[in-house]
Amino acid sequence: MLKVKLLLRKNIEKVKAYQPGKPISEVKRDLGLRRVIKLASNENPLGPSPKAVSAILKALSQLHRYPESSCFYLKNRLAKRFGLEENNFIIGNGSDEIIVLVLRALLNPGEKVLIAYPTFLIYEIQANACGAKVIRVPLCRFRYDLKRMKEKITPEVKIVFIANPDNPTGTYVTDREVKEFMEDIPEKTLVFFDEAYYEFASGLPDYPRSLDFLGKKNIIVTRSFSKAYGLAGLRIGYGIGSPDLIGYLERIREPFNVNSLAQVGALNALEDKDFLKKTLKTTQEGKKYLYQEFEKLGLTYIPSATNFILVDIGRDSAEISGELLKKGVIVRAMNAWGLNNFIRVTIGTQKENEKFVKELKRIL
Amino acid sequence: MLKVKLLLRKNIEKVKAYQPGKPISEVKRDLGLRRVIKLASNENPLGPSPKAVSAILKALSQLHRYPESSCFYLKNRLAKRFGLEENNFIIGNGSDEIIVLVLRALLNPGEKVLIAYPTFLIYEIQANACGAKVIRVPLCRFRYDLKRMKEKITPEVKIVFIANPDNPTGTYVTDREVKEFMEDIPEKTLVFFDEAYYEFASGLPDYPRSLDFLGKKNIIVTRSFSKAYGLAGLRIGYGIGSPDLIGYLERIREPFNVNSLAQVGALNALEDKDFLKKTLKTTQEGKKYLYQEFEKLGLTYIPSATNFILVDIGRDSAEISGELLKKGVIVRAMNAWGLNNFIRVTIGTQKENEKFVKELKRIL
Repeated sequence: MLKVKLLLRKNIEKVKAYQPGKPISEVKRDLGLRRVIKLASNENPLGPSPKAVSAILKALSQLHRYPESSCFYLKNRLAKRFGLEENNFIIGNGSDEIIVLVLRALLNPGEKVLIAYPTFLIYEIQANACGAKVIRVPLCRFRYDLKRMKEKITPEVKIVFIANPDNPTGTYVTDREVKEFMEDIPEKTLVFFDEAYYEFASGLPDYPRSLDFLGKKNIIVTRSFSKAYGLAGLRIGYGIGSPDLIGYLERIREPFNVNSLAQVGALNALEDKDFLKKTLKTTQEGKKYLYQEFEKLGLTYIPSATNFILVDIGRDSAEISGELLKKGVIVRAMNAWGLNNFIRVTIGTQKENEKFVKELKRIL
Repeated sequence: MLKVKLLLRKNIEKVKAYQPGKPISEVKRDLGLRRVIKLASNENPLGPSPKAVSAILKALSQLHRYPESSCFYLKNRLAKRFGLEENNFIIGNGSDEIIVLVLRALLNPGEKVLIAYPTFLIYEIQANACGAKVIRVPLCRFRYDLKRMKEKITPEVKIVFIANPDNPTGTYVTDREVKEFMEDIPEKTLVFFDEAYYEFASGLPDYPRSLDFLGKKNIIVTRSFSKAYGLAGLRIGYGIGSPDLIGYLERIREPFNVNSLAQVGALNALEDKDFLKKTLKTTQEGKKYLYQEFEKLGLTYIPSATNFILVDIGRDSAEISGELLKKGVIVRAMNAWGLNNFIRVTIGTQKENEKFVKELKRIL
């Protein structure tokens, strides 16, 4: 009998596996359902950006070629958009990969990572995978408690993750809160602004401009094409930081980390202003509708700056989400985050939202 | 001035960036050429598997959905093909990602990785990125010297990489050599068989059946869809190992590491037997042609078990490859591998091979 434990790195058993939302095809197959709607993974209900899809069609004949390693064209486009340079950007296999690259580039074993709790699960999983110690600071009224988090920064804390807006709560930290937090942040600590839901929140008057800290503080900002641009299946996101930091991340990434269709898709999605506009409108209208329906049902929800809503259903969420599943509606039960009575529902099309509300009403 | 060095992990400066082959579009643009052929990255000259492309076309409307996290369907198909179980497989963003996952799962800082030199560059780059020490054992007549490599295994050596066939030499180690090597391999050492070029070599009578060691020794075997199946642009490869080992790799991988089109493409490419047959035939015929032409030119080449040939051009390879580039032929100069008089040329279509030979003749 082979003992794989002998092979493994110290503390690797600590790493817990991530539990993803169920895919539509699996639910259809397992439950024998014909129509299933998925409001579980904060995907864009309008589909992928049509401009991205048209461009991808033209690129299919070249799939035998390796992708362009540096993602030059996308970096160039992003640099122009933000008034920065190409070397301020790194492109990842989803912004998930940027999280991992930063952890790998910065952490010596036993160093610390500071996170809120609950928040996006990948920070803790991947920090553990890098042998780091994770310090959790509880949310305060479902919001990041930046004051408490700042108090917890010691010389061993190498990275602070700030999901803004946050997942799974949908809340955000304000311009003022972030400015206060960034004052006197030690030079040995990187602040990681995960802005995967940026496009949904950036119109808010007090949403912080994290890029203003570039060159002044050690920060990295990540954004994604998975949500507002509807390209989750392709895996592409980006990080913005100082050329120095980005240069080190570039060295340790795999040379062909971003597939060629993702590069083409993202480049064209960025120009798809109509699609983005429609996405934001659908989200805004759906949010208003769902808020109203939750209020009618007497359910407490957390006002959201994103395309999803965290809602307290007052009963065991695994049970309720199981009931919804049987009716062909996939939502996320929040047990894994320690929020046992909460579900997280993605804002869908009006038709999807209505179906969800109808089934939720029946069950409650 | 911010000091990014304060942030970084120990020894990260040691990591060198990988230098990829130039993309066709870049060469066209830089040199103002209309027709450019790329024989630099061991890509499939016939294009992508047509069955893969048809299946991808049907999947484009669902790009807004996250990929299936576990790659269940592909694992299931592979398991049937090899007479193994789904949990013997991990799917990666190219087999490059499996290399990184294994390094991350096994290495404590300062532990060692044993490689041949020269060989596939990613082993050393990524081992350094994990803070490991790399021991290089020189090739003997352009072949892995497994006897010397075995002598170098100490208790600190956690991983031995065996690229079989090897890149950039195209040579392979035989069944007998591997069997001898695997005898009394310590339990604390994982043998990593990188079989990215498997399909080109597996017909050779003395090519080893690495999977025979599964369950008996600590091994992992990786294969790729980038070469014989023509899907380099999509990024997908797989690892085969014990369920125990695979389980730990699964824990530390990013949950959506393999994009959905890669999953669909690979699943269908596996069934594209005609395409694979045609690819192997084109490679075989092109190899014969190039061998003959090299002989006519009086050039020494290394007989290859892959879809590329390493050839000694007797002059500075950077200079010759630069001359070829001006004529619209991209090949790889072997300086980065310390083989200053060698180029590596991918076997192309007959037309591409002829163009390459014509231009090479003119230059020499």
